[in-house]
Amino acid sequence: MARLKKDHFNDFGLGEKSPSSGYRAVNKDGSFNIVKTNIPFFERLNFFHALVTMKWTHFFGLILLGYFVVNFFFATIYYIIGVENLTGTRGMGPFEQFMEAFFFSAQTITTLGYGRVAPLGLPANIVAATESLLGLLSFALATGLLYGRFSKPSSRIRYSEKAVIAPYKNINGFMFRIANPQKNQLLEVETNVSVSMKRKGSDLRNFHVLELERKRVVFFPSMWTVVHPIDSKSPLLGIDLNDLNEKDAEFIVSLKAFDESSGQMVYSRSSYKPNEIEWGQKFVYVAYQENGKTFIDVSRINETEDAILN
Amino acid sequence: MARLKKDHFNDFGLGEKSPSSGYRAVNKDGSFNIVKTNIPFFERLNFFHALVTMKWTHFFGLILLGYFVVNFFFATIYYIIGVENLTGTRGMGPFEQFMEAFFFSAQTITTLGYGRVAPLGLPANIVAATESLLGLLSFALATGLLYGRFSKPSSRIRYSEKAVIAPYKNINGFMFRIANPQKNQLLEVETNVSVSMKRKGSDLRNFHVLELERKRVVFFPSMWTVVHPIDSKSPLLGIDLNDLNEKDAEFIVSLKAFDESSGQMVYSRSSYKPNEIEWGQKFVYVAYQENGKTFIDVSRINETEDAILN
Amino acid sequence: MARLKKDHFNDFGLGEKSPSSGYRAVNKDGSFNIVKTNIPFFERLNFFHALVTMKWTHFFGLILLGYFVVNFFFATIYYIIGVENLTGTRGMGPFEQFMEAFFFSAQTITTLGYGRVAPLGLPANIVAATESLLGLLSFALATGLLYGRFSKPSSRIRYSEKAVIAPYKNINGFMFRIANPQKNQLLEVETNVSVSMKRKGSDLRNFHVLELERKRVVFFPSMWTVVHPIDSKSPLLGIDLNDLNEKDAEFIVSLKAFDESSGQMVYSRSSYKPNEIEWGQKFVYVAYQENGKTFIDVSRINETEDAILN
Amino acid sequence: MARLKKDHFNDFGLGEKSPSSGYRAVNKDGSFNIVKTNIPFFERLNFFHALVTMKWTHFFGLILLGYFVVNFFFATIYYIIGVENLTGTRGMGPFEQFMEAFFFSAQTITTLGYGRVAPLGLPANIVAATESLLGLLSFALATGLLYGRFSKPSSRIRYSEKAVIAPYKNINGFMFRIANPQKNQLLEVETNVSVSMKRKGSDLRNFHVLELERKRVVFFPSMWTVVHPIDSKSPLLGIDLNDLNEKDAEFIVSLKAFDESSGQMVYSRSSYKPNEIEWGQKFVYVAYQENGKTFIDVSRINETEDAILN
Repeated sequence: MARLKKDHFNDFGLGEKSPSSGYRAVNKDGSFNIVKTNIPFFERLNFFHALVTMKWTHFFGLILLGYFVVNFFFATIYYIIGVENLTGTRGMGPFEQFMEAFFFSAQTITTLGYGRVAPLGLPANIVAATESLLGLLSFALATGLLYGRFSKPSSRIRYSEKAVIAPYKNINGFMFRIANPQKNQLLEVETNVSVSMKRKGSDLRNFHVLELERKRVVFFPSMWTVVHPIDSKSPLLGIDLNDLNEKDAEFIVSLKAFDESSGQMVYSRSSYKPNEIEWGQKFVYVAYQENGKTFIDVSRINETEDAILN
Repeated sequence: MARLKKDHFNDFGLGEKSPSSGYRAVNKDGSFNIVKTNIPFFERLNFFHALVTMKWTHFFGLILLGYFVVNFFFATIYYIIGVENLTGTRGMGPFEQFMEAFFFSAQTITTLGYGRVAPLGLPANIVAATESLLGLLSFALATGLLYGRFSKPSSRIRYSEKAVIAPYKNINGFMFRIANPQKNQLLEVETNVSVSMKRKGSDLRNFHVLELERKRVVFFPSMWTVVHPIDSKSPLLGIDLNDLNEKDAEFIVSLKAFDESSGQMVYSRSSYKPNEIEWGQKFVYVAYQENGKTFIDVSRINETEDAILN
Repeated sequence: MARLKKDHFNDFGLGEKSPSSGYRAVNKDGSFNIVKTNIPFFERLNFFHALVTMKWTHFFGLILLGYFVVNFFFATIYYIIGVENLTGTRGMGPFEQFMEAFFFSAQTITTLGYGRVAPLGLPANIVAATESLLGLLSFALATGLLYGRFSKPSSRIRYSEKAVIAPYKNINGFMFRIANPQKNQLLEVETNVSVSMKRKGSDLRNFHVLELERKRVVFFPSMWTVVHPIDSKSPLLGIDLNDLNEKDAEFIVSLKAFDESSGQMVYSRSSYKPNEIEWGQKFVYVAYQENGKTFIDVSRINETEDAILN
Repeated sequence: MARLKKDHFNDFGLGEKSPSSGYRAVNKDGSFNIVKTNIPFFERLNFFHALVTMKWTHFFGLILLGYFVVNFFFATIYYIIGVENLTGTRGMGPFEQFMEAFFFSAQTITTLGYGRVAPLGLPANIVAATESLLGLLSFALATGLLYGRFSKPSSRIRYSEKAVIAPYKNINGFMFRIANPQKNQLLEVETNVSVSMKRKGSDLRNFHVLELERKRVVFFPSMWTVVHPIDSKSPLLGIDLNDLNEKDAEFIVSLKAFDESSGQMVYSRSSYKPNEIEWGQKFVYVAYQENGKTFIDVSRINETEDAILN
């Protein structure tokens, strides 16, 4: 039956069943609460994605580790070939000799090549020529990765911590606020809001796309209060906070914009659960003008005041 | 006549005639079964495409080969100029001298420059200065290619091996399943499915776009069962497996999505032939919930069970 | 009331209130006259955006400064370890020794490595190996940033300094001219023009999207006169220059195009205030033909002549 | 009057007036026959565009020239500082000394640094440290440019040399053929065709968008015959070759596609003048099948045969 309401149905690709109460499909930070299991390692593997999205500390840690391991590996080879095939080495004992080989390797892989120590004879020269090629290719890769990491548009959209049910014209509306804390301009910002609610006495969930007062803005230089008017067509009509709790509602926000500085589309997601919705509150106006400029106090994004609902 | 059914006709750019039976326009891996011939080499040539799409083993093999050939070439030049124009060479015989020239070349093209061997006099210096410039440009190119290869979004969408004809509401549907095995999020996923069938007693083929229950999902964090309902408007209405075989049907799937980690659009294709379609089977539900998270067992993507068709 | 005219209302994300007269939301150069305050430093921070959009002189100044500071830092470390751990140093006094350490550091971080001075012993070698790795990563980053800066499509669209109210067919029109002074082709150029005007006796502003004679051109090889016909549906109908001044009108122009040479979308903005609008002027035709070619004199983009309004 | 036919009017941004006969707005190779004049040099300048679109021979010539000039410049500085501040120089006369300085500069800017010659003392060291930094930044830039040049999708679409007027169903059609000679897949290919014709006894031109049998294909693996049916709504209805000549018609083709290997949109343009249109010819079918594969003989793209027009 519910299936027939095809126009009102859109599961956003999140799946239909979610029996447990207090379930959240989209986390506050926009990640999905969904785990894909039993995927073979090599099918799941995506080096680029992993290396571009890992934390900076992990990324540099990995590079340092790789640098050490590769130099250790090549030092061993030079040591086996014999340090007498490296001119200028001064170490006497095995440890000093290995160290000379190790730092010779470091000077080779970075193409530093001081030359105090230099390879002599075919085997040492072949290894050194190979190592320097490997070094150049590795740092070529690192260059690409660093660019990929750095240029990845980081759409750190800030969402108000709570959504509100506030008066809107002569009805009420579901509202939350967003701001772009960064200097890069976001253009053609489009917002989608949907709500998923458990069906009565069932594990299944209904998904409803919420109509917005304004779905899209051309510019986004300041702050935007996104409004869903609770009119006669709204799935929220006549619902109160108890109902939302009972239906284990989840409001899923999805935002898409063009980032002018990177020239790329950026996406952002967040969600609101019933305990993050204030009834009978409205957002405070946070702009003021001085010297012909408009100032927006972004730190007040969460500020609300009492409001009498219609 | 068939031409007049313009709305139902869309050859997707695949061409109309395909007389032989068992023909497949789109292979399982998404490549096209079409060969373009008699194109002049330089018009067909696309270095970037070739170097970015070739296998990693071929790519590194090519770089190694190029490194060897270029060093051999420059070693020959240094040898002709005379190894006495390289300071510090220790080789006596022609082979040793050539080897010194060869590894001097390697140390020059990688800008390693140990300096044990160094150029002296105008000719050797000119060659070395040119070679180091060439080296830098070559590795600049390699940097770009490695980035191009690495950042290319690899949309390894997994399609269920078989499609099924399963009950759907009070009718039946043509269904297959897809999953994204990787961690990168695919957004705004759009699917197109069409079927091409031989006309009775003719070499020509008709193409039909199949209407889908849902053509587009905003998120794609888990698994998606794509459904074409076989309703009164479906070109599959009243057709059985024998008909599909006789008409040499081919179901062509085309998928398009935004890859969040690379910031690029990705495309994927696949196809189903009659022997890859199960009648009266339906896909098994593979999600379960634990600790407020949803788990999707991707390894069960192909799992079906018997179902009674309407 | 005004709120109800939803179709005519679009604040473009610029906010509604702007009490002071002579206010400008979008500056001539396309930047926004809006300041976001009280954002924590690390939330506001966007290294890539900052480094890609700063002036070239600042960018190179920063790199030079960083180069000096890092070398000073490493020179201090080598000096503390003791210059006797660097072979080949010739300086005697502390200043000369520090200088040797400083330039040894420069030779290490750039992977130049002449080798006249070279590290000896564990501590100096560890520092040098670390410094050369740091150098490679830094220059990898600089490579990416330079590419990012260079490839950023600079849509230096030239707008006519003034807009005009000129006769158009049997009515009048609001017109301005744009040209692309550069050689890169802009394709699929789309223009949006809106006007914001203060409401009578109120701090609030109304925003109106202006209908254009042509909103979009496929090619943009020459000059384009953008025309808003002041017909019966225009919010400018019956308005004169005094009204525009009183309502503190602002015409906001937003342009979007595909830049063929960079393969990216480019955006451009500008605005016109009442003192930048000429009544009863029209733009002069600036194209001429010679030898089958059309010539456009871009320097005459601002040239107007008297015209009798309808 | 003509202005009122707004729906049929679309000048594609090419300008309206083109008095001379035999005029061509878009050349066969897709460039525009339009010259923008009197643009100040620095406004016109777009380094990235220039360096990315110039010929490979020019690009490498420029790099070689720059390499020579910069080394000559630094050699002069080292020579002025005094070659005695470079250790290991062996030249005696001024020319030999300058050469030593020149190649020392080359070894410094490429960060080769053999070390046979090395800087000594503050002035030489400062210059060398600066030069090596400059070298790294220059090659960083070259890396970006090479990547930009290489990754720029080169949509070398091949258009049939002539268009034809051929029978189409029970009417006739204006047709031409296109093929993608390269291995990279073009997806979602969209074609626009318009015709510009001089008005009778006027310098002005009318532009008409031509309706196409199929405007868009999802795949483009082989060859595509683009067809404009000359039906009752076509601006070509009842026109013959003489009329086309008299009206100095120009058919402008514009094509847009997604290039799968580069992940970018590519654009291509071409045009047909009356002398490039064959009346009463039709394109020959150039596909054949072998071993379940379809072969397309691209070299026969221009092949036509006589056809009786309706």
